[in-house]
Amino acid sequence: MKAIYYEGSKKLVSAPAAEALPGPGDVRIRVAYAGICGTDLHIYHGHMDDRVTMPQVMGHEMSGVIENVGEGVEGLQEGDKVTVMPLHSCGQCPACEAGHSHICHKLKFLGIETPGAFQTYWTVPAFTVHKLPESLDLKLAAMVEPLAVACHDVRMGSVEKGDFVLVIGGGPIGALIAMAARENGARVLVSEINPYRLELLGRLGFETVNPLDRDVLELVNGLTAGKGADVVFEVTSTQAGAELMTKAAKTRGRIVVVGIFNKPPAVDLHRFFFRELQLYGARVYETEDFASAIKLADEGRLPLGELITDVLPLEQVEDGFRKMESGGNAMKILLNCGV
Amino acid sequence: MKAIYYEGSKKLVSAPAAEALPGPGDVRIRVAYAGICGTDLHIYHGHMDDRVTMPQVMGHEMSGVIENVGEGVEGLQEGDKVTVMPLHSCGQCPACEAGHSHICHKLKFLGIETPGAFQTYWTVPAFTVHKLPESLDLKLAAMVEPLAVACHDVRMGSVEKGDFVLVIGGGPIGALIAMAARENGARVLVSEINPYRLELLGRLGFETVNPLDRDVLELVNGLTAGKGADVVFEVTSTQAGAELMTKAAKTRGRIVVVGIFNKPPAVDLHRFFFRELQLYGARVYETEDFASAIKLADEGRLPLGELITDVLPLEQVEDGFRKMESGGNAMKILLNCGV
Repeated sequence: MKAIYYEGSKKLVSAPAAEALPGPGDVRIRVAYAGICGTDLHIYHGHMDDRVTMPQVMGHEMSGVIENVGEGVEGLQEGDKVTVMPLHSCGQCPACEAGHSHICHKLKFLGIETPGAFQTYWTVPAFTVHKLPESLDLKLAAMVEPLAVACHDVRMGSVEKGDFVLVIGGGPIGALIAMAARENGARVLVSEINPYRLELLGRLGFETVNPLDRDVLELVNGLTAGKGADVVFEVTSTQAGAELMTKAAKTRGRIVVVGIFNKPPAVDLHRFFFRELQLYGARVYETEDFASAIKLADEGRLPLGELITDVLPLEQVEDGFRKMESGGNAMKILLNCGV
Repeated sequence: MKAIYYEGSKKLVSAPAAEALPGPGDVRIRVAYAGICGTDLHIYHGHMDDRVTMPQVMGHEMSGVIENVGEGVEGLQEGDKVTVMPLHSCGQCPACEAGHSHICHKLKFLGIETPGAFQTYWTVPAFTVHKLPESLDLKLAAMVEPLAVACHDVRMGSVEKGDFVLVIGGGPIGALIAMAARENGARVLVSEINPYRLELLGRLGFETVNPLDRDVLELVNGLTAGKGADVVFEVTSTQAGAELMTKAAKTRGRIVVVGIFNKPPAVDLHRFFFRELQLYGARVYETEDFASAIKLADEGRLPLGELITDVLPLEQVEDGFRKMESGGNAMKILLNCGV
């Protein structure tokens, strides 16, 4: 029974965790697998110290089995396979009142503002828990949270059958967006510079392009008879991505901003005017996206397992971070928390 | 029978125009009034020499009376009061095929790519001509084209009853957007730095703020109980406007880019992500917007006439440009082409 504690930039400590039964309304989950998200890497690098309370257990992508159920919790019981939608909204701000509680003005994100999943047991509010089908493999189930992000992004971009979709950035989220868009009937081109990821995406049947080797815009225009992409997903948070997104979108095309930009890039607002482009910011997911992700993961059509490049014991989390930092041969790295 | 010819940066020549009957499918209009648009000022300054063919007659906001009708033209006749929707699309590009002919990839804009309205008689394709109600004053009718821009912008921003709308920039287009948004039932705040325009907008019943005197964001949050603006119109094409638009919009708020940015500003895409903001580029108008503008102008509820600060004889067009350049006591300047 242990947990990985973040104690400051690049400082992690593995230590025993206190044993405690869940309080009223809470559920205690025995964590099976936890994915490492780009956000966890940001925390590890000390970039989010204003949001975390040290020592902090990070991690919010996970799967597990309910160990104990707190007083007053209904519809969940010991032994249920579950995952967690790690959002705790205030219920009172203008966003919550408008029905957009996932972007609550005072949103607490489990694993950032509250303890996370990089531990043997994780206790969370019952309303964050989603039951999983018995048939769903727990490794794949740890992909539900990032897949829900992709489902939300694709829904915000209104991807439809026959659309030509450009995904700028083929990391785990870009790859999942590509899958969800293809599931909606779109033709998908992924722009990515990492050769390992390009090869993997190609193997999964996606058209790919390395912008260092080839003019992406020329390719998009060639593939769409000069029309441009119906929907563009920007998942790189780079100036180059911000430039490509406006160039590649068709007239009245939809651009979805998924990447988290550290500083405001130059954006061609003239192009927005001239071609009446539309841009949609997309953050996390809503309950319906989580439900879609669970259903998709269980149906088994998406090659989710192919994205899991590494499964490390919980204690080797820093090896996972180092592999992500290297930008090398990795896509999604899972931690086995039950070993 | 004369025309004003643009012959290069800040060089205008008033000269007789050739007399000619309209060809097949064309209509010859005796121009009554022509408004000076910011685009005409851009042409005058030589900034659009790549699009105009010198000597060029500019001007595209106008009203007039049909003088002659060419062969094959139906539904229009001598003596009809008319205005012109100055768009000539190709009908074959992907935008036209998708039903967005107003943003045709090869759009010809009358008065830019073809001769314009700063002349006694203007010959145009019949399909660009919109009949006006007999009751509509021809000065107000010259405001239909910019009002159609505002109708389009407000429609693209989906402004609804009860919305709080922030218009950044209170020039002629900003003022017309404010009117059209108020007509839809919105509460409208206009941010503007020109004292003359602030006073005029205040007289027309709009809430106004001078960002040089007061923190606009604080004001918007105060007026909306911390929610932010439902819809923001950016009509200044400035970095300051691009910054304010993302700060002032509510969670899931809609931002409409109306201003024509000469260079890409820094845009806070993190804010788009974090608050799931939406941005819509809006250019010119569609036929339904032109119809709305004619109806609104005729119904007389909008104080359109209050925006007409000057009516100059056609020959004094350069006085009009100088007044616009000075940034002083002007809103919409009309040229009387029938004197």
